[in-house]
Amino acid sequence: MSTAADTRPHVVVLGAGFAGLTFAQKFPAGLARVTLVDRTNHHLFQPLLYQVATAGLAVPDIAQPVRSILARKRDVTVLMDEVAGFDLAARTVQLRQSVLSYDHLVVALGGRTSYFGHPEWERHAPGLKTIDDALRIRRNVLHAFERAEMTDDPTERQRLMTIVVIGGGPTGVELAGTFAELQRHVLARDFRRLNLRTARVILVEGSPRLLNAYPPELSDRARAQLESLGVAVWLGVQVREIRDSEVVLPNETLRAANIIWAAGVAGSPLGPQLGAETDRAGRVKVLPDLSLPGHPEVRVLGDMIALTDPMGQIVPGVSPAAMQAGAYAAQTLARELRAGAAAAPACRAPFVYFDKGTMATIGRSRAVAKIGRLQFSGFTAWLAWLFIHLVFLVGFRNKLSVLLSWTYSYLTFRRGARVIYGFPREDPPPPAG
Amino acid sequence: MSTAADTRPHVVVLGAGFAGLTFAQKFPAGLARVTLVDRTNHHLFQPLLYQVATAGLAVPDIAQPVRSILARKRDVTVLMDEVAGFDLAARTVQLRQSVLSYDHLVVALGGRTSYFGHPEWERHAPGLKTIDDALRIRRNVLHAFERAEMTDDPTERQRLMTIVVIGGGPTGVELAGTFAELQRHVLARDFRRLNLRTARVILVEGSPRLLNAYPPELSDRARAQLESLGVAVWLGVQVREIRDSEVVLPNETLRAANIIWAAGVAGSPLGPQLGAETDRAGRVKVLPDLSLPGHPEVRVLGDMIALTDPMGQIVPGVSPAAMQAGAYAAQTLARELRAGAAAAPACRAPFVYFDKGTMATIGRSRAVAKIGRLQFSGFTAWLAWLFIHLVFLVGFRNKLSVLLSWTYSYLTFRRGARVIYGFPREDPPPPAG
Repeated sequence: MSTAADTRPHVVVLGAGFAGLTFAQKFPAGLARVTLVDRTNHHLFQPLLYQVATAGLAVPDIAQPVRSILARKRDVTVLMDEVAGFDLAARTVQLRQSVLSYDHLVVALGGRTSYFGHPEWERHAPGLKTIDDALRIRRNVLHAFERAEMTDDPTERQRLMTIVVIGGGPTGVELAGTFAELQRHVLARDFRRLNLRTARVILVEGSPRLLNAYPPELSDRARAQLESLGVAVWLGVQVREIRDSEVVLPNETLRAANIIWAAGVAGSPLGPQLGAETDRAGRVKVLPDLSLPGHPEVRVLGDMIALTDPMGQIVPGVSPAAMQAGAYAAQTLARELRAGAAAAPACRAPFVYFDKGTMATIGRSRAVAKIGRLQFSGFTAWLAWLFIHLVFLVGFRNKLSVLLSWTYSYLTFRRGARVIYGFPREDPPPPAG
Repeated sequence: MSTAADTRPHVVVLGAGFAGLTFAQKFPAGLARVTLVDRTNHHLFQPLLYQVATAGLAVPDIAQPVRSILARKRDVTVLMDEVAGFDLAARTVQLRQSVLSYDHLVVALGGRTSYFGHPEWERHAPGLKTIDDALRIRRNVLHAFERAEMTDDPTERQRLMTIVVIGGGPTGVELAGTFAELQRHVLARDFRRLNLRTARVILVEGSPRLLNAYPPELSDRARAQLESLGVAVWLGVQVREIRDSEVVLPNETLRAANIIWAAGVAGSPLGPQLGAETDRAGRVKVLPDLSLPGHPEVRVLGDMIALTDPMGQIVPGVSPAAMQAGAYAAQTLARELRAGAAAAPACRAPFVYFDKGTMATIGRSRAVAKIGRLQFSGFTAWLAWLFIHLVFLVGFRNKLSVLLSWTYSYLTFRRGARVIYGFPREDPPPPAG
C-alpha cells in the first residue's frame, strides 16, 4: 500500500477538470509519481452541463469517474478530497483529511459562479457549475410545470411557467434556447392541461448585446435565433435585486418560479491563497510559462488564471484553453525532469493559446460559431458544433454503442432525463462513516 | 383547460407503479376520463433498482416519466401529487394540493420498507424502495471506498470496506451478489492502493435459509453461488440492534460503514386508511375481484393487498402479479362501463394469479429460477433472467439503440453510474415556488 520506497519526484495535481485531467493524461510514464486530487470522483464534460439542467441529457452522459479514465496510468493515484490551503515554503498542500508534500504542484481548481458581491442571490438564482447545480435547476423547472398543471390560479400558473435566465454569455444563451425548446416541443407533449404557448423564457443581459466575446454580427444572429424559438431577449437591462421568485429590474419586477444565474464567473476562491497578484475576479496572474511568480515548481492552469499570451491573446476560460494548458504543463515539466536539475526554469518557452474557434448553440438545430476569420450561424454552425462535441465525446466515452445512444437521446431529448428525483424529504443522510 | 363539459365517469388511479400504470395502459379509450396520480413524475422499473444501488445502471436506464409513457392516452391526465386520505362515502380522494371526486377508484400505492417496529434503524440501514434510496446507498458505498483509499488506519479501512446486507430474500441476495462483484471486478481496477480482497460483503438472514419463497434446493444453490463470489452468508442470525456503523448480533457486533436493510416489506401506510381489514404488514384484505369490501367502486391492487386467489395461490408482491392485477381491473371495469348500470358487480369473475415463475440473480452471470415445476440455477437461469428483463425493457424504452447501450452498460458495469453526486453541501434548496 505504501509508496515510501518510490524515490521519484512527487507531482501533485489539484483538480480533475479539463486542465488537471489533461495534465495527468499527457504526462509521460515513469518520470514521477503523480497524485491527482479532486473533491468529486468524476470528470465533468462541462460544455454540456446545460443539457443536464435542461433535461436533455442524463448525468452518465457527461460525467465519468476519474479513476476509470486514468485506469491505465500506473503512476497516477487519485484521491477524492478537498483542498484547504497551501504552504508554498514547506511545499505541502493541506487537504481536509491529510497533508501532501510535493516536488511539483499543478493547481487547476477551476472557477465558480460569481454574484458580484451579492452572495445572498444564490439561494434564489442558482448558477451552473456542478452536477448538483444542474440537477437542482432541472428538478425545480420540471417541478414548477407539475405544479402549474395542478393550479387553477392563472397568476400563479404564469409564475410557475416563467423561466428567467440572467446573463447573455454562451451559457445563458444555451440555457435560454434549450429551455424554450423544452417548453414548446417536449413539455407541450407531456402536459395535457397546460397551454405551453403561454410559458415564457426571458433572457436578461446587462450589456447592449449577447455573446460579448463574439463579433457583433454573431450577437445579432444569436438574438434573432433565440427570438425565433420564442425567447424574450432583454438587452441593456440591469438586475437590481433578486428575491424569492422575483427579479427586480429598473422598470419592473419579474415573477418567475425559476431564476437561473449565468452572469458571472470568477476563479476558484483558493486562487488568492497562492499569494500572487489576482485580477478582480480572483484569477491568478501567472507568468508566461503558467508558473506562479517566484515559484517555478508551482503551475496554475485553467479557469483560475488571468493571462495574456505573447501573441496578445487573452487566454479565455474555456475547455480548449484548459486542455492546451494541461498539455503544455505536462510537456514542460517532463522535459525538465528528463534534463535534471541542470535545466533552469528560465528556459521554458511561453504558453501560446491556439484559438480553434468558439461556438454557442441555440436550441437543437441552431448555433453561432467563429472559427478563425470565418463566421457561421444557423444550421451549418450547429452541425459543426454537433460534430465537434461528438468527436470529443467519442474520445470521452469511447464506445460506438454509447455514441449512438447519446446521439439518439440528444436529438430526441432523453426521456429518462425528465425523471424528477432528489427532493429532500427529510434530513440529509449522514455521509458514510 | 377545463374538463367540466366531460360527462363520462371519472376514474381516479392512485400510483404509477406496475399495477396503476398497467391499468392506465390497458383501460380502453373513450369509456371514461382517467386521472393518474403519483407522488413522483416517473414509473420505476423496480426489479432493477438494486442495479442503481450497486452502481451498475444509471437512473434513466430504469425510470421513465409517466407523462411520456402515456403520451398517446388522450383520456388520461397525470398529476404529480401525494395522497393524504380518502372519503369513501363522499367518493373523494384528498391530495396534498387538491381534492379529486371519483366514480371509480383504483388504489395501487405499493409497499414500503418495514423495520419491524424499529423505525430508528432506518437512519443507519437504508432500505431500497425509491430512486433516492438507491442513490443514497450507491453514494455512501462509493464514498466509503474513497475514504478507505485515504486512511492509514487498518481498523478504519476494514470498517469502510465492509457492506452488511440484512435480509436473504431476492433483494438481499441480488444486492449482496452484485456488491461482491462490484468490489472484486470494478473497484479493484479503480482503486490503486486498496487491496479489494480484504473488502467484505456479509449477508445476514434470520431464518435458516435464503429465498424462503423458493424450493430448498434453490436456496442452497443461491447460497453456494453467493459464496463463490466471496459473500459471507450468515443464516439463522437475528439482528438485535442497529446503530451508526454497527449491527449487533447475538454473538458479536459487526462494524460496517454500509448497512443495507432488505429484510422487511409492508403495504403502503395508506392501506389501513381504506377501512377494510388488513394483515400484520398493513396489506388490505380485498375481495376476490380485488374490490374493497362494501365498495365495489374501489379496487385495490399491487403490493398493498393480501389475497389468496381461488386456486389457493397467495398473490405475491412482485411486478408480474401487479401487472396482471392492473390488466384484470382495467378489463372488468371496462366491461361494466360498457354494460351500464344494469350489470351488477357481483358478476365479476375472480382474479387468478398466473405464476410465470420467479427468479433471482446472483451477480452478473448466475441466478436461480423456478418456472412451473422446473428449477434452474447458474448460467442457464441467468440467461433466462437476462432475456426476460431485456424483453421487458424493450417494451419499456422502446428503442433498439437504447437496448444496445443498456446491454453494453449492464455487461460492463456502466461507468457513469459510479459518479458520486448529491452530497448535501448546505441547506437543501427550497422546492420551486
